Amino acid sequence: MSNRTLISAVAGLVGQEVTLKGFVRTVRDQKRIQFLVMYDHTGAIQVVHMKEDSPALAATISSLTDESAVVVSGKLVENSNVKLGGVELQLRSIEVCNLAQSPLPIQSDSSLDLRIDNRHLSLRSATDQLVIRVQTTMERAMRDFWERAGFAEIHSPKLMGVASESGAELFSLKYFGDKTAYLAQSPQFYKQMAIAGGLDRVFEVGPVFRANPSFTSRHDTEFTSVDMELAWTESHEDVMRFEEEWLASVIAAVKAKHGDEILELFGVEVVVPQTPVPRISLADARAILEARGHVIDHKADLDPEGERMLSTYIAETFGHEFVFVTDYPVEVRAFYHMRHPDNPQLTMSYDLLWKGLEITTGAQREHRVDRLMAQATDRGFDLLPLEHYFKFFEHGCPPHGGCGVGLTRLLMIMLQRSNVREVTFLYRGPNRLTP
Amino acid sequence: MSNRTLISAVAGLVGQEVTLKGFVRTVRDQKRIQFLVMYDHTGAIQVVHMKEDSPALAATISSLTDESAVVVSGKLVENSNVKLGGVELQLRSIEVCNLAQSPLPIQSDSSLDLRIDNRHLSLRSATDQLVIRVQTTMERAMRDFWERAGFAEIHSPKLMGVASESGAELFSLKYFGDKTAYLAQSPQFYKQMAIAGGLDRVFEVGPVFRANPSFTSRHDTEFTSVDMELAWTESHEDVMRFEEEWLASVIAAVKAKHGDEILELFGVEVVVPQTPVPRISLADARAILEARGHVIDHKADLDPEGERMLSTYIAETFGHEFVFVTDYPVEVRAFYHMRHPDNPQLTMSYDLLWKGLEITTGAQREHRVDRLMAQATDRGFDLLPLEHYFKFFEHGCPPHGGCGVGLTRLLMIMLQRSNVREVTFLYRGPNRLTP
Repeated sequence: MSNRTLISAVAGLVGQEVTLKGFVRTVRDQKRIQFLVMYDHTGAIQVVHMKEDSPALAATISSLTDESAVVVSGKLVENSNVKLGGVELQLRSIEVCNLAQSPLPIQSDSSLDLRIDNRHLSLRSATDQLVIRVQTTMERAMRDFWERAGFAEIHSPKLMGVASESGAELFSLKYFGDKTAYLAQSPQFYKQMAIAGGLDRVFEVGPVFRANPSFTSRHDTEFTSVDMELAWTESHEDVMRFEEEWLASVIAAVKAKHGDEILELFGVEVVVPQTPVPRISLADARAILEARGHVIDHKADLDPEGERMLSTYIAETFGHEFVFVTDYPVEVRAFYHMRHPDNPQLTMSYDLLWKGLEITTGAQREHRVDRLMAQATDRGFDLLPLEHYFKFFEHGCPPHGGCGVGLTRLLMIMLQRSNVREVTFLYRGPNRLTP
Repeated sequence: MSNRTLISAVAGLVGQEVTLKGFVRTVRDQKRIQFLVMYDHTGAIQVVHMKEDSPALAATISSLTDESAVVVSGKLVENSNVKLGGVELQLRSIEVCNLAQSPLPIQSDSSLDLRIDNRHLSLRSATDQLVIRVQTTMERAMRDFWERAGFAEIHSPKLMGVASESGAELFSLKYFGDKTAYLAQSPQFYKQMAIAGGLDRVFEVGPVFRANPSFTSRHDTEFTSVDMELAWTESHEDVMRFEEEWLASVIAAVKAKHGDEILELFGVEVVVPQTPVPRISLADARAILEARGHVIDHKADLDPEGERMLSTYIAETFGHEFVFVTDYPVEVRAFYHMRHPDNPQLTMSYDLLWKGLEITTGAQREHRVDRLMAQATDRGFDLLPLEHYFKFFEHGCPPHGGCGVGLTRLLMIMLQRSNVREVTFLYRGPNRLTP
């Protein structure tokens, strides 16, 4: 690792001998001169070699294939004709660490599926590199905010002995003989256990699993869920207030570090949301949609088209990309959402929409065990499989609330991609378990 | 959430009216005066109430059970007789948010199994709170170091289409009809894919799964693995050099933030390792152990007793808690470890021992696909299930190395606990899938 210079640093090192480590982008082999463009994760540079200086080096360069891994040494010189920062490297030596097989299995216009088949190569594209860097920055900023707010980090188990929230879309497996384990669909119950356990405020970033057979652009069978839970909230309003400040700080961090590059590569202006984010009750949202001719018939929730129309309305009316939709009826929410004291048909819950897509569900939780059990019964749940869950609330569990965010969905909307597959390190779907 | 004062802040607020939110530790109900000790995640405080001031309040306090969740308001006053910081709260009002059922299902001397059965309560103990706080600080410090070193974060899939490294100890599940998925035992292949994909340096903190039926103090069926991989390392020495600096900074961060509390609650002095950590080849380690009368017969690895004896030797000789054991023979290492150019029977790999227990395995990886396939064949692997893996190395994968660390094992040794179950948020074992 010794003596490596990152390509991003070359501008300040003109006149010096350096060693660069990276990949071959292109080779132009001319009659007397050879040009090699190489890149690493920080940038690209032109390497130049006069063939007569070294026939051996010239032969090595002629043999190079695109994407090969190389270590290149030489002197950095100014050359105002060179697009890549006005600096090029005069070749002194080159080591070919790993010659790429040719032809490459993907080109820039390859299908998304073929790109995923060759994820070890498609990851090298400038856009995919940026996606991972933005994700890294996002998570870093999330943790900065949580740390300042006194959160503890938890890693809850993904193997569960009982089907959790719904039992639908659940993967199961044989576990030591005749036992059955289930893969966690969310850390919901465990972050509530942490609150009961006095950790006060907790977050988790980890995988969740959904045995969902659909192939939409928004679904995958495994994704990274970002979850947080706060003790002593008094209503979903407290949770929204926390989430909007948290999210604004995350988006601000991404804009500061990657805003220019996101604009350049994705054509998207990252907008840091003003807080407070507009809030609207589901009932009011439906009335607005109906006035605009969009009637949602039976289900008490918004449909995808309704979400898009509502975000358009909010953008027109408030100039805002985000909207909290609040107070969902009990029949479309989890049984553990707290109900409004003055209207037990409505939950103290919300969804957060960004540019027409739902990115978060949050709520004040019911922490009083008798009411919690009554709500579960009311929603048709068998109480026995939930007995471990109910126990969390028997010994002084504080009031609490929280929310969960899909990491790739957040990335997809931020970068205005049309499919979660484009922003996932390695997508998993009903027909996709490889590579 | 409004107006909450954390108990850690009371010393600076004497004379003021505050609202505290937390749990009941004890109630002493005397003839004319009542004492309530309450705590939150930051500390404990005595609350005092003269019964004659309010018979209603007195009745509420008399009804309180241990561990109930309460919101208490009143005036902070100095009282030099009080152990808890010399400050107590004169009660003005109390709200009982959640009365704990009595008696509690666990006491301070309850068995570990019963404590795990009631994790929502055992988490409230000072020791278990500290474990989670130390873990949070550890991970934070890890990420600080990685960020300064230019790492990207990845979340690799836990559902895999093919059995990975060994096929042993692997959980499998039915996946959409007749397909089979496996739960990842490590992110090894995917962090290597990320390196092939040009991400240069990557880390992942996430769950791994081991269908290991054993019940030792060091094993669980699911745990949090801390993995990192670095492009352009030239040998395992580069990886060790990185890991020791990383680990020293992590331990220093824990010592700075929690050193006093760890000493007080666990009786353990946290020692920040001097770098470089001593290195010893496995062959030399075995010779030393043999000279001390411990002969490891057939297997080419250290046994647990050998690891303990070696750490004792290193402590005596170098005054160091850590030791890198290097150059393991090929038959006890993964097929993808690079072999020494001058001795193909030995791998360019290492284990890191801390106080007699292995916490890390690391290695330079074989990145040349022809050698990699030959090594897999040599070790008896069927190449077909590995074809996706081999493809990572066909298009210019740089030389690279990395290592993996078990998070709970690290915590267990740091806090000198005898069992990973004592330092896991929620333990999973062959007979343990709940709560």
